[in-house]
Amino acid sequence: MSTATPTYDGLAGTWTRLHHFGHLQSIAGWDQAANMPPKGNEARAAAMAEMAALLHRMRTEPALQGHLERAEQEPLDDFQRANLREMRRQWLASNALPEALVQRQQLATSRCEHAWRTQRPAHDWAGFVENFRPVLAAGREEAALLAAHTGLSKYEALMDRYEPGMRCAQLDRVFGEVRQWLPGLIRQVRAKQEHEAVIAPVGPFPLAAQRALCEQVMKLLGFDFEAGRLDVSTHPFCGGVPEDVRMTTRFREDDFLGSLMGTIHETGHGRYEQNLPRGWLGQPVADARSMALHESQSLSFEMQLGSHPGFVSQLAPLVAQAFGAQPAFAPQNLHRLLTRVKPGFIRVDADEVTYPAHIILRYEIERPLIEGEIEIDDVPALWDAKMMELLGVDTRGNFKDGPMQDVHWPEALFGYFPCYSLGAMYAAQWFAAMRRALPDLDARIGRGDLRPVFDWLRDNIWSQASRWTTDELALRASGETLNPAHFKAHLEARYLG
Amino acid sequence: MSTATPTYDGLAGTWTRLHHFGHLQSIAGWDQAANMPPKGNEARAAAMAEMAALLHRMRTEPALQGHLERAEQEPLDDFQRANLREMRRQWLASNALPEALVQRQQLATSRCEHAWRTQRPAHDWAGFVENFRPVLAAGREEAALLAAHTGLSKYEALMDRYEPGMRCAQLDRVFGEVRQWLPGLIRQVRAKQEHEAVIAPVGPFPLAAQRALCEQVMKLLGFDFEAGRLDVSTHPFCGGVPEDVRMTTRFREDDFLGSLMGTIHETGHGRYEQNLPRGWLGQPVADARSMALHESQSLSFEMQLGSHPGFVSQLAPLVAQAFGAQPAFAPQNLHRLLTRVKPGFIRVDADEVTYPAHIILRYEIERPLIEGEIEIDDVPALWDAKMMELLGVDTRGNFKDGPMQDVHWPEALFGYFPCYSLGAMYAAQWFAAMRRALPDLDARIGRGDLRPVFDWLRDNIWSQASRWTTDELALRASGETLNPAHFKAHLEARYLG
Repeated sequence: MSTATPTYDGLAGTWTRLHHFGHLQSIAGWDQAANMPPKGNEARAAAMAEMAALLHRMRTEPALQGHLERAEQEPLDDFQRANLREMRRQWLASNALPEALVQRQQLATSRCEHAWRTQRPAHDWAGFVENFRPVLAAGREEAALLAAHTGLSKYEALMDRYEPGMRCAQLDRVFGEVRQWLPGLIRQVRAKQEHEAVIAPVGPFPLAAQRALCEQVMKLLGFDFEAGRLDVSTHPFCGGVPEDVRMTTRFREDDFLGSLMGTIHETGHGRYEQNLPRGWLGQPVADARSMALHESQSLSFEMQLGSHPGFVSQLAPLVAQAFGAQPAFAPQNLHRLLTRVKPGFIRVDADEVTYPAHIILRYEIERPLIEGEIEIDDVPALWDAKMMELLGVDTRGNFKDGPMQDVHWPEALFGYFPCYSLGAMYAAQWFAAMRRALPDLDARIGRGDLRPVFDWLRDNIWSQASRWTTDELALRASGETLNPAHFKAHLEARYLG
Repeated sequence: MSTATPTYDGLAGTWTRLHHFGHLQSIAGWDQAANMPPKGNEARAAAMAEMAALLHRMRTEPALQGHLERAEQEPLDDFQRANLREMRRQWLASNALPEALVQRQQLATSRCEHAWRTQRPAHDWAGFVENFRPVLAAGREEAALLAAHTGLSKYEALMDRYEPGMRCAQLDRVFGEVRQWLPGLIRQVRAKQEHEAVIAPVGPFPLAAQRALCEQVMKLLGFDFEAGRLDVSTHPFCGGVPEDVRMTTRFREDDFLGSLMGTIHETGHGRYEQNLPRGWLGQPVADARSMALHESQSLSFEMQLGSHPGFVSQLAPLVAQAFGAQPAFAPQNLHRLLTRVKPGFIRVDADEVTYPAHIILRYEIERPLIEGEIEIDDVPALWDAKMMELLGVDTRGNFKDGPMQDVHWPEALFGYFPCYSLGAMYAAQWFAAMRRALPDLDARIGRGDLRPVFDWLRDNIWSQASRWTTDELALRASGETLNPAHFKAHLEARYLG
């Protein structure tokens, strides 16, 4: 590094230390979900809270503010300047919050999430609400503090942690558009599919065979098992660190498609992480760009690729090999199974077409919840009304498959949900860009040649990390910023074409 | 806590933070051994080193010395005073050594241990010696500094890190006694066993069945799977934290007894950890008392209980259930397999009777080595002579199964070896005390009623943690301090009775 940038160099050293401590926190978090026995939770929560407090102290070290200001005056190159921009963003997010709030939030979410695991199957809404109140109170405090620092609205301020640059006005416009055409599209697709015969797979599907199939497909999708693992947890996620990616899934003996497609989804996250630029690791500029961008990778894998008829024709023989041949495993039938549209209770089980309805619902509930316009006791009625309105589904009294279904609220991940649908839109946009560059893309996928997809994603997304703002990245990758028209076109082509 | 002990209270807070960070380090260390894929190693090592540096900074914080002195003047109760004693012991261990020595030692041991992994199978003694010289030099420096701080001899000062209070005069007396009767006892036992037929088990023993058997036996032995796990690693150990004990084992398809008895051994360590007093956790007074005491628990499980004819009669049907009936699994034959005495090269494979000979040999070599009375080049000849003298085994030219067999010397764990045999002696002493209190103990064990054993260990050892010095603990538990006569009596009763 240049000697003319001593303050910047010092900041880079601080972030390397943050990266090292974050590594331990990340592995301990994965372990908590994948391995930890129940009686370990209290000690783990205390240890994680201690680490969160340490990281918070490091990020709120008073001298940092002056260092950031001085570094901004140093003769930095574009890359260093991008890194410094991300440092300042992280610094701002951390310095808006007092340590006591961070610790209280960590304890409240850890307790709420742990209890939720048993409260959810028991439909224990009252018990859940009791633990959730302190989570929400801390979330609102956090939102108010972040809003005061950034000039954003409270909800925007929380969302900005996951999706920097995204604003409620843009989201309202995008989701508002979708709200207009989505119920109609769902009706059209369902009417079309009503006349298509679909053969259901016949179980049971032994767990060992499912696991082997998932690992085989992960390899096909380029996951590096020398730098990561697949394990089991209640709520599948992709954790760990870029050098050691810890993916989790869950298996059910009576259904293999859920875990298979879930694994393909997480593999998209995993490859993004595994292919972040190694030379920059430890610096914020090497982080994945945003949660919507992350989701654009998992959905590029699960939806754009995973439910692509050409990919499904590659998948079908592997499925037959894993469980024995069945009429249901014929490529065309498998494709129909994977593209079946049916409104349901559960977001994570939702098909590609009804999924945005679940997200719009959550956005329309958690935004006023954070803004203080509604209270937690208002949620069940709102949930029931919006599920009926958007999907025609009756959820009354069903807390388990209603507002208790996701881990996001117990974990105070307010502002995260929109990223899922933004990711679906970006994924459609990436594949549209690929097709413009490679007119034979679909034929290649049908021949099992996935390299053009991985090459495009590596060059345009993975290797770019946080080098650019999301808008700049989208512009460089696809020639335009977020354009939800590609998502609509994708759904119409796949489901009505 | 009393308001008259503000300095003590502050120290307790510091140790709670050390405990929380140690939790993360411990889980990450377990993960490294049990889960981590190879490409994750570099990032993990960097993260662990960062944490080690943080813990070292906290333990060497200059203000601590004054706090310890002030706290010693505060009106503490006996419990607080015991805790403060342990704080000072830990503080001394961290503060007696200059940073430069610690770093040099880490570098030397890490290089020596790494090379040893390939030098050992290659019998490369000359190559090993080259790497070992700086390890020994640093170890001697460390010993000299610790000796100057404590007034102990150099070797005692190193041993005191693992076995506080143990002195060479006592060890010389105890090991000197054993030296007198052990070779004769080995001869007698071998003569007796020569006429006993033993049927060897016939493999293979499927790994899944071995694992299920191990977990079944761990449950029988009271391991709490709600507060711990069993996993696989190359080198079995008992890690994790008291609230979440992570035991590991390794399986070989051609032998199940090794992993089964290894698991029983580690279960003893695990139950000690799981039953340390919860209310004090985080404070040094809640730590396991010493390495010999820890080993007294693993050997209470593996040797006193695991090879007890009554326990073996409970074990036999489980073994037959796991692998199918075999003549070898008859209780009497299984007991003979577990109590077979045969002098050999390898310490970790040694039976209960010949094991102390391996330890005495190491003590008689590493003590003068640290005191500067002999040099590393003297070791092979001493090794050969002592192996011949103590066990009648010819080790000339066999470096792999001779002085290169253990990881302890490459890792500079000088002063650790004696704890293994002290642990065996304490274990015999605990069971002698149990039999005095419960004359029908052996009959109860034969009926599968293990509760009296666990109750005694919990009340007298586990729950006492570091509340007392080792001598005080032994006196309270068994009415006397370390008395090796119980070990001799145990061996004679079991092997010549």
